Amino acid sequence: MKIAMVGCGALAEIYYAPVVQELQADGLAEMSVLCDPDVSRLKKLRTPFAMAAAKNRIEEVVAAKPDLAIVASPPRFHAEQTIALLDAGISVLCEKPMAATVPEAEAMIAAAEKASVPMAIGLFRRFFPVNRTIRDLVRNGNLGAVRRFEISEGGAFQWPAQSASFFQKSASQGGVLADVGVHVLDLILWWFGMPERVRYEDDAMGGLEANCRMELSFPGGVSGTVRLSRDTALQNQTVIEFERGWVRCAAAAANEMEIGFAGAEFAVAGQVRKTEGPRAPHSLPGDSSHQSFARQLRSFLVAVRGEGPVEVPGPEGIRSLRLIESCYRQRTLMEMPWLSPGEKAHASALAQSVAEP
Amino acid sequence: MKIAMVGCGALAEIYYAPVVQELQADGLAEMSVLCDPDVSRLKKLRTPFAMAAAKNRIEEVVAAKPDLAIVASPPRFHAEQTIALLDAGISVLCEKPMAATVPEAEAMIAAAEKASVPMAIGLFRRFFPVNRTIRDLVRNGNLGAVRRFEISEGGAFQWPAQSASFFQKSASQGGVLADVGVHVLDLILWWFGMPERVRYEDDAMGGLEANCRMELSFPGGVSGTVRLSRDTALQNQTVIEFERGWVRCAAAAANEMEIGFAGAEFAVAGQVRKTEGPRAPHSLPGDSSHQSFARQLRSFLVAVRGEGPVEVPGPEGIRSLRLIESCYRQRTLMEMPWLSPGEKAHASALAQSVAEP
Repeated sequence: MKIAMVGCGALAEIYYAPVVQELQADGLAEMSVLCDPDVSRLKKLRTPFAMAAAKNRIEEVVAAKPDLAIVASPPRFHAEQTIALLDAGISVLCEKPMAATVPEAEAMIAAAEKASVPMAIGLFRRFFPVNRTIRDLVRNGNLGAVRRFEISEGGAFQWPAQSASFFQKSASQGGVLADVGVHVLDLILWWFGMPERVRYEDDAMGGLEANCRMELSFPGGVSGTVRLSRDTALQNQTVIEFERGWVRCAAAAANEMEIGFAGAEFAVAGQVRKTEGPRAPHSLPGDSSHQSFARQLRSFLVAVRGEGPVEVPGPEGIRSLRLIESCYRQRTLMEMPWLSPGEKAHASALAQSVAEP
Repeated sequence: MKIAMVGCGALAEIYYAPVVQELQADGLAEMSVLCDPDVSRLKKLRTPFAMAAAKNRIEEVVAAKPDLAIVASPPRFHAEQTIALLDAGISVLCEKPMAATVPEAEAMIAAAEKASVPMAIGLFRRFFPVNRTIRDLVRNGNLGAVRRFEISEGGAFQWPAQSASFFQKSASQGGVLADVGVHVLDLILWWFGMPERVRYEDDAMGGLEANCRMELSFPGGVSGTVRLSRDTALQNQTVIEFERGWVRCAAAAANEMEIGFAGAEFAVAGQVRKTEGPRAPHSLPGDSSHQSFARQLRSFLVAVRGEGPVEVPGPEGIRSLRLIESCYRQRTLMEMPWLSPGEKAHASALAQSVAEP
């Protein structure tokens, strides 16, 4: 199967290139096209893929007719590129966020439907064993009903970005919410469904937010908070409390989890393992974060071959975008007690000017 | 607090001596008397306890007036020695099995009540974090009702016994059931209460059983099997299936456990940790097997000082003895398909002669 890599930034180099090399070694796929407007990036990515054609424009990728394309360019190009590929019958795995705006994402979904070609959104945390386990616990009620969740992710921005788009209001839909928040909100929507009430605040004062906080309530009584930061080290964990127990996992640990039980003196902290029940002879370690990323692409290859479902199709990917847009529409300024009264007034005026575009 | 060690066999040497040394280092207790009829054992045990008096008879221990005595002699001496100590107002931690017969155990309980002195039975597996967690899960119903359990423990006999009593019908109440079985049945009774039906079979043909199998049913629908062996390597694990999940733990692992959930793809295998809930900053590793043994004695010191309850008092210890006696009364011969018809007939006759003493 011929793969085109559209956008050769840090994600392509650090995450996708090793996975495609694995697939090549397994004889499942080959990297046939690399596409980026930046010649130095193309040169760098061609080191492990000497046979791949280097292209600058999406039209050239379309002309090369790969079987599937991975769209990993900055988000403002996702819709245009994905639709061009789909229209030509090329399957697309589009990185998160699916698009820069909800109408763009809607156009992508329509294009995929019209072309009858698989389109998946790159939300690889859905493949984390911990996240699948949480989904199972919520769905099957093993620990009773969900009561409350608390999710925090934050630290100094460390992504080796190859463009400034993360920090430009012209290039990005938003700050930390539109970036890491896409992963977190996607999981929340996947686990708990649509919230009925959302309260959102951030620290944007004319630019992109570096910090934000959300309080969500769901039909049936589930509620929870999300705290994200690009500058403050937070606890970096997900805690979910059920009627009869709780789970805790670290943000980056794909296959480690702690499980506690209401009224019990002890909890169990350890590795998440694939199991066939207590009588099966062995349980094997679940995928790591890297392995989950690889599994995402392998799973998409299966879908492109028509041998399995698309795990995260467009209508799933668009949900977190909708929630993010509604957050930005109702944003209020976070409390910043360290500001003087004069600074506070100025900050409020700036935040106000952003809220009314 | 002055401690007397009554019986200086392998248990005293390998398990109790290091724990009493710990207590001495903490200034909580001192080994003041060692008692054994075998002078070479006394000499060996005195190496770490040079200040302890060496005695041969229980009367001498009573005369020395320690605060508490640990009775770790062969089981046929437990009742006589424990009662002599209790009658003199000395607290007793008596090793399992509590006594050689149920009437002896009843006499011990009566003596403890009459003397109003703490008596504990040495069933240290009750202190294992895994076993406490199972008790909590059963009692609190975190995973729903218990459905079924399967417990197996077995391998070549490896205990460094200092007397032949384990293998002498004159010295021991029974074979593997009366030995390892005491621990296993005590946990079962602690977790699930009294069974309403028990089916028991073993391989004794005039001597002590090396293998046995039990099937137990409890009011409310719980049922399970126990398989014990002194000569065959078994799975050495406890599996308990609940309505909405299961737990699995290795026989010797005091603080490791695997937890699975009905309908979930993954289970969690790891360390059992002391927890104060998902928001407490750290959860600490639960006690290991050795630490659980130490905790048993420390807990008894607290009870002797009148500052806490006796964790496993006589009326708790006698329960497994009663169950074991009822098993032996109804024993049937295990299937041994490798015997010829003649050998089978001979084996049945032997087994019959044991059942009718």
